[in-house]
Amino acid sequence: AGDAAAGKAKSTICATCHGAEGIAIAPIYPNLKGQKAPYLVSSLKAYKSGQRKGGMSAIMVPQAMTLSDADMADLAAYYSEMK
Amino acid sequence: AGDAAAGKAKSTICATCHGAEGIAIAPIYPNLKGQKAPYLVSSLKAYKSGQRKGGMSAIMVPQAMTLSDADMADLAAYYSEMK
Repeated sequence: AGDAAAGKAKSTICATCHGAEGIAIAPIYPNLKGQKAPYLVSSLKAYKSGQRKGGMSAIMVPQAMTLSDADMADLAAYYSEMK
Repeated sequence: AGDAAAGKAKSTICATCHGAEGIAIAPIYPNLKGQKAPYLVSSLKAYKSGQRKGGMSAIMVPQAMTLSDADMADLAAYYSEMK
């Protein structure tokens, strides 16, 4: 499983759209607060691999490309553990 | 915008994986409770159009194919308004 503290350190750019508290700043972006960690990892991997297009993929694909598996696990832990 | 009551009536099959309270029954499925309605519609449309693959798309694509734009708006209203 990921490390939420490490995830928080990596989440600065994510917060731009998904909000500092994991509640998205605009309704077209998903809230991430309390979301299931494996689902978040699965989504990031689908963006990174190009399997997930549509929606805001134009923003998410380049972001996901910068993330390692460990980064994804840490970010997923951070957001899923958010209260 | 969608009609949450109409969405509830259409959500029986969704609850199978996403839970009766919008909290997914397994960690690979996303929670939908309180999620942004436009994001939910965008996701359903991406599944329906085949733009969103990967993850659990094998389950979601056939589901999304059965939904009209009105169904999607109603379901999105239902889940986004869930407290």
